[in-house]
Amino acid sequence: MSRFLSPRFAGLEAYTPGEQPRDQQYIKLNTNESPYPPSPEVLARLNADEVKRLNLYPDPEGKILKEKLAKLYGVEKENIFLSNGSDDILNFAFMAFCDEERGAAFPEISYGFYPVYADLYHVPHVKLPLKEDFSIDYKDYCDINKMVVVANPNAPTGMEIGLFEIEEILKANPNHVVLIDEAYVDFGGTSAVGLVGKYPNLLVSMTYSKSRSMAGARLGFAIASKEIIEDLEKIKFSTNPYNINRLTLAAGEAAVDSDAYYKENAKKIMATRETTVKDLKALGFTVLDSKANFIFAKPPKISGADFYAQLKKKGVLVRHFEKEKIRDFVRITIGTDEQMEVFLQKTQEVLADR
Amino acid sequence: MSRFLSPRFAGLEAYTPGEQPRDQQYIKLNTNESPYPPSPEVLARLNADEVKRLNLYPDPEGKILKEKLAKLYGVEKENIFLSNGSDDILNFAFMAFCDEERGAAFPEISYGFYPVYADLYHVPHVKLPLKEDFSIDYKDYCDINKMVVVANPNAPTGMEIGLFEIEEILKANPNHVVLIDEAYVDFGGTSAVGLVGKYPNLLVSMTYSKSRSMAGARLGFAIASKEIIEDLEKIKFSTNPYNINRLTLAAGEAAVDSDAYYKENAKKIMATRETTVKDLKALGFTVLDSKANFIFAKPPKISGADFYAQLKKKGVLVRHFEKEKIRDFVRITIGTDEQMEVFLQKTQEVLADR
Repeated sequence: MSRFLSPRFAGLEAYTPGEQPRDQQYIKLNTNESPYPPSPEVLARLNADEVKRLNLYPDPEGKILKEKLAKLYGVEKENIFLSNGSDDILNFAFMAFCDEERGAAFPEISYGFYPVYADLYHVPHVKLPLKEDFSIDYKDYCDINKMVVVANPNAPTGMEIGLFEIEEILKANPNHVVLIDEAYVDFGGTSAVGLVGKYPNLLVSMTYSKSRSMAGARLGFAIASKEIIEDLEKIKFSTNPYNINRLTLAAGEAAVDSDAYYKENAKKIMATRETTVKDLKALGFTVLDSKANFIFAKPPKISGADFYAQLKKKGVLVRHFEKEKIRDFVRITIGTDEQMEVFLQKTQEVLADR
Repeated sequence: MSRFLSPRFAGLEAYTPGEQPRDQQYIKLNTNESPYPPSPEVLARLNADEVKRLNLYPDPEGKILKEKLAKLYGVEKENIFLSNGSDDILNFAFMAFCDEERGAAFPEISYGFYPVYADLYHVPHVKLPLKEDFSIDYKDYCDINKMVVVANPNAPTGMEIGLFEIEEILKANPNHVVLIDEAYVDFGGTSAVGLVGKYPNLLVSMTYSKSRSMAGARLGFAIASKEIIEDLEKIKFSTNPYNINRLTLAAGEAAVDSDAYYKENAKKIMATRETTVKDLKALGFTVLDSKANFIFAKPPKISGADFYAQLKKKGVLVRHFEKEKIRDFVRITIGTDEQMEVFLQKTQEVLADR
């Protein structure tokens, strides 16, 4: 820390992304990437002609991509906000819709970035415990008089709450934004996008990083009332108007045009997930009910930390959180069938060593 | 504006980027892009194999690119910060190094984003007038007890101050960051990067958008003391750790590897600039002394606004700022020789109509 840093950031703890070790090739099941490449249409679109035009700024409005997304989700272009990965939507929401008077509430066990944003902007916040079974009790978020942030499906549990519960939260907090983070919704979850017309306080955040195989391209988008989108645009145009590069915009357009390819991949991932869950349960694992492209599982006979470490030694990366209540678990991204077979074989070896 | 927006942003005026009209093809001399495409090495690097890996997250550290840039600029990897365009460096600097007690000072006539950042973060700030000849008087910035932000060369004037002046500012503000914004330094300006080892308060901001033909890829970088870089990393990892996408990182690496190509382009642009300046002066224009890839010029017989509007009708876009002291001028990006010939011809037509 330099002596120039404003003292208000002295105690700030930054977010720690999943590890990206380069010492060897791993089967990477630790950052919830899709195991499948982008669609042939995306590959075709990012050709030499597109690259040659990199000397020109991108469209700061992202008009064409917004129109395509609006059509896909049955909303207007003015209901869409584009961002440099969906983290920026969270970032802007904590900045725009919270302050010392307007706090935030989110689950104690959820995406680890929420408390970082709250700390960054000095937003008073409450972390609400999950129920014993790791599910979210929507009643905890009703009449809470704060911005509500809920990942649905939740991370790292993979569990979802239903639209009835979300509507209750929306109705009980009419003066605050309710941010539903749907990064993982395309793997069997239920989207709240259909409620946007009914609730002006609903902000749905989505990403191309998971189901659309574009974690490397950084593209997120939000769907909400025009007024909320206007506010997010104001923050964007006051921080970084050209926040999305040309190639990512082009890839995003081509991905919408090839939506069927990604839906098919999501189906494959869901099928692989169900097989993996069955196999792990047969080995004695406790596995939470996942609607995401990952599962949260507790191994038998071995701690979460040891299981993670032993698997890493054998070339398979999963994610372990050294955190109360969940340290017995690991989060396992669903890869291809072939990757999960290796994972299962290595898992059996680890358990056999006990 | 929604009723959810924090009242502290109620009066915020966002930045307005240069227009990107799509009604017809223009000769685009309004946003200081390079008229030349990225190098053959960049084109070769962004091939189908790179695109296929877009399902994987980028390296949030940008280690390889940092190493290459460090070598190119004669510093350590730890002196380099990578950002999603250089706007994000400005954004983070105003956020990290300013607060209610630590104000900011910048020229009254300069990059229009500085006051937006100051307003966004509620930073008390002073806008210091330029001298009559549009130059910066470095003495105004000495002992000012604020973060100093100076674009060098300055925009939209294109004029530079020397390293002697910058050192005086650095010495006179040892407890504050001095941010030298070198977006346009590669067109004949003098970089302050060599002073980084000597002044822990120096932060130099650079971009790939101009001399490196990558406005569309969004890549900026900063060079500063390790402590200042650490602070910027802390903000990055608390807002958007994966802020630079895979293809941009790869293109950035290939661009460093083909540095000679970009130096050659910069030379061509400087030669074209000198010809354009001579031609405009012959037509009666007042032209400021530019070290950038644009010139700031005042037409004879016609207002800046009219000149801009007439040129636009004829298919040539330049930028006009409806702002006191500079409204008689237009900013003209230096394009190819062919583009500048069309610009000059259209300029002659506009003046002949008077």
